[in-house]
Amino acid sequence: MPLSGFRILDLTRIISGPFCTSLLADMGAEVIKIETPGEGDPVRAQGVIRDGLSWYFANYNRNKKSITLDLYSEEGKAVLRRLIAECDVIVENYRPGVMQKMGLGDEALKALKPDIIHCSINGFGTTGPYRDRPAFDFIAQAMSGFMSLNGAESQPPMRAGPPISDLVAGMNGALGIVAALLRRERTGQGDSVSVSLLGSMIGLLSFQASNYFADGRLPARTGNDHGIASPYGLFETADGQVAIAPSNDVVYHKLLDALELSELRADPRFATNADRMRNRGAITEAIQTRTREHTSAHWIERLNRLGVPCGQVLNLQEVFEDPQVQDQHMAIDVPHGDHGDVRMLGFPIKFAQAGGRPVQAAPALGADTRDVLLRFGFAQEDILGLQERGVI
Amino acid sequence: MPLSGFRILDLTRIISGPFCTSLLADMGAEVIKIETPGEGDPVRAQGVIRDGLSWYFANYNRNKKSITLDLYSEEGKAVLRRLIAECDVIVENYRPGVMQKMGLGDEALKALKPDIIHCSINGFGTTGPYRDRPAFDFIAQAMSGFMSLNGAESQPPMRAGPPISDLVAGMNGALGIVAALLRRERTGQGDSVSVSLLGSMIGLLSFQASNYFADGRLPARTGNDHGIASPYGLFETADGQVAIAPSNDVVYHKLLDALELSELRADPRFATNADRMRNRGAITEAIQTRTREHTSAHWIERLNRLGVPCGQVLNLQEVFEDPQVQDQHMAIDVPHGDHGDVRMLGFPIKFAQAGGRPVQAAPALGADTRDVLLRFGFAQEDILGLQERGVI
Repeated sequence: MPLSGFRILDLTRIISGPFCTSLLADMGAEVIKIETPGEGDPVRAQGVIRDGLSWYFANYNRNKKSITLDLYSEEGKAVLRRLIAECDVIVENYRPGVMQKMGLGDEALKALKPDIIHCSINGFGTTGPYRDRPAFDFIAQAMSGFMSLNGAESQPPMRAGPPISDLVAGMNGALGIVAALLRRERTGQGDSVSVSLLGSMIGLLSFQASNYFADGRLPARTGNDHGIASPYGLFETADGQVAIAPSNDVVYHKLLDALELSELRADPRFATNADRMRNRGAITEAIQTRTREHTSAHWIERLNRLGVPCGQVLNLQEVFEDPQVQDQHMAIDVPHGDHGDVRMLGFPIKFAQAGGRPVQAAPALGADTRDVLLRFGFAQEDILGLQERGVI
Repeated sequence: MPLSGFRILDLTRIISGPFCTSLLADMGAEVIKIETPGEGDPVRAQGVIRDGLSWYFANYNRNKKSITLDLYSEEGKAVLRRLIAECDVIVENYRPGVMQKMGLGDEALKALKPDIIHCSINGFGTTGPYRDRPAFDFIAQAMSGFMSLNGAESQPPMRAGPPISDLVAGMNGALGIVAALLRRERTGQGDSVSVSLLGSMIGLLSFQASNYFADGRLPARTGNDHGIASPYGLFETADGQVAIAPSNDVVYHKLLDALELSELRADPRFATNADRMRNRGAITEAIQTRTREHTSAHWIERLNRLGVPCGQVLNLQEVFEDPQVQDQHMAIDVPHGDHGDVRMLGFPIKFAQAGGRPVQAAPALGADTRDVLLRFGFAQEDILGLQERGVI
C-alpha cells in the first residue's frame, strides 16, 4: 500500500477531517482516531442508523482504529503527548488556535516529535479576520462564490447537494499531508499544513474565475447549459433525456453526423461555437427534434460509438446497478461484525501495484484503546488507572 | 517545496489533467508539458482571451514548461521515449488504450524507466464496458448520481456550475501520484495509477450514498435545505439573505439565544432535529421574522461571535474583495511578460515550512523545447533537424 508504515493521529470529527483521514487509511496508513469517552464522533449518531450502526460513520471511518481519550483532562493531554511522539502525522479540524490553547502549538508539537507533520482543516484559514468563525459546509459554499455559479439562470444561487466543501477540503488535506511526508523523506523535516473549506471551494472556481479576472464580467448561472459551449445539456428522447456535450467543433460535427443532421454543418446560424451560443434555442431544438425519435439507450450507444460524449442522469439506485460502476468497485460490501455486510463507497484512486486494502470495518468507540496504549508502551496498570479515572 | 526535485512529464490537455499537474507544479515539481506543434493545448484558445492570452490557460498552466512534440510521428515518439527515461512521473488523459497503441503500455514504460509512475486520468476507468467512451464533465456529473442530488426539490436535476468532475479527478490524480512517489521512496517501485471522472464524482456522494445503502430510499434533492438538518438554509434579512447552518442541538440553541428567541427552546414543535424537519416551514418563518429586523452584516457579525455559522452568498467580485479571501491569497497576480500581471486563483494548501513557490507565468507554446531537449542530452544539430522536420 502507498502509505503502509505511516502512522496518523486523527483528532478530527464530522466530515472534512474524517474524510481526509479515510483517504489516508484507504491507502494503507495506520489511522488512530481519538474520540471523546462516552460520546465519540457525533457522526456515530447521524444519518440512517441500522441496528445501532450509522452507515455514514461506517463509511468514513473504515480502516481506522478508535481510542477514547478525554482531552479536557490533564492526564488525557499527557497521554496525547506520548502518542504524538510516536506518530508521523497529526490531523485536526478544530478552530484555529485550539491546538495552541491545548499546549500543542507547532513549536510544542515539534518538541514532542521533531519531524511531525501537523494538518489543520479549518473553515477560513489560520489567519485573517474570519479565522475564529465557526465553519460549516453551507457557509463555505455560499461565501466561496460557488453557489453564485450553481443553479438555473432564473433561480436563486444553489448549494451543491453533497457537502462538497468538507469533501474537497478533506482531499486537499490528504494531498498536503502526503506531499509533506514526501518532502520529509528527502529532507528529514516536518511541516504544518493548513487547508480551509473556503479556500478549497475557491480553488474550484476554474474558468469562471479566470474569465472574471480577465474581463471583469460576473459569470451567470447557466443551469444545465454550459457557460461557453453550445450545444450542451439535456435533450429529450423518446423515453427520457440524454446529456450531450460536444467539447469542440470536431465533436460537434461528429454529433451532427451521428444524428444524421449533417446538412446543419452548412447552416450559418451554427457555423461556430459563438454562432451556436447566439442561436442556442434553435440548435437545441434541431437536435431535440431528432433525439425524440429514438430511446435514450439508442442514442447513448450510437453517440458514444461515434465519438460524442453522451449519457443520462442516473439516481443512486441506477448508479450502483450500472455495470461500469460495478466494474470499478465503487460500492463495496464490508463485513462488519454482527451487522453483516455494510455497503460503502469504493475508493476512487486505483493503484495497479500498490493494490487495494482489505477493507476493515469502522471501529466501535474505543475498540483499540487498550491495544494501542500497550503498543505505545503504557503499562497494564497505568491503562487500568486511566480507565478508572474516566480518562480513556 | 514539497515536490522539489521531482520531474513530471505531462501529456494532458483541457482541464482534468492540467489541473492535476498544476497542483503538482504549485507544490514545486518540474512539470514538462508536451503539446502538439502549431496548436498546443486547446485551452490556449478557450475562455476569455485578452491580448492573445487565455487567462484560463494561464491559470492552469503556470509553473510549467512547454515543449512541442509531434507524437503522431515515429521520430516524435522516439524523443518522448528519451524524455520518459528521465522523468519520475508521466501523466496523460487519453482514452484508456491509447498509450498501448502508442507503444507505451505499462510494460513498455517500465522498460524505459523501471520505477516510473504512470497516471491515467480518464472518463470511466481503464476497464469495464464504458472504458472506450469519450468523457466529458457534464456526462460524469449526470451518470455519477451527483446531479440527482443537486438542485431544487421541484426542479430537474442540476449540473454543478464549475466542471467539478474534471477538478475532483485532477485532485485524485495528484493525490495518487504523490502517494505513489512516497511508496517509491521506501520501496524503489513505480506504479500505475488510474482515476476517472465518474469514480471521482461517486466518491463525493457522501452521507446521501450511505443513507441510501442503509435504507434503500433514494435521497431527494433539497435545494438549499439540508437533507437531514433543520433549520438550515437562506434566511431573509433587512437587506438581503444570510446562510445559517447550525450543525446540532448545541448550535441550534446558540442560534435561538443569538436571535433572542430563547423561548422557542421550549416549543414542542422544535424540540429535536426530527421535530424541526417535520416543522421546517414554521421554524424557518420564526427565524426569518426576526432576521428581517436587521441587516445581513448585523447577523453575520452577531451569529458568528456567538458560535453560529453564518455568512452570505457572494458573487465572484465580492469573493475576491473579501478581506479573508485576500488574507488567504486566493487570488494572485502573476507577472506575465508583455501581458503585465495576470490574475489567477491562489493555491489552497498552505505549507508553513515548505513555503510558497514564486509563481511563474504559463509558458508560450514550445517555449522550453530547446532548453529541455539540450538538458536531456539532445545534441544541438539533432534539435535543429527535429525542428526542420516539424517534429518539435
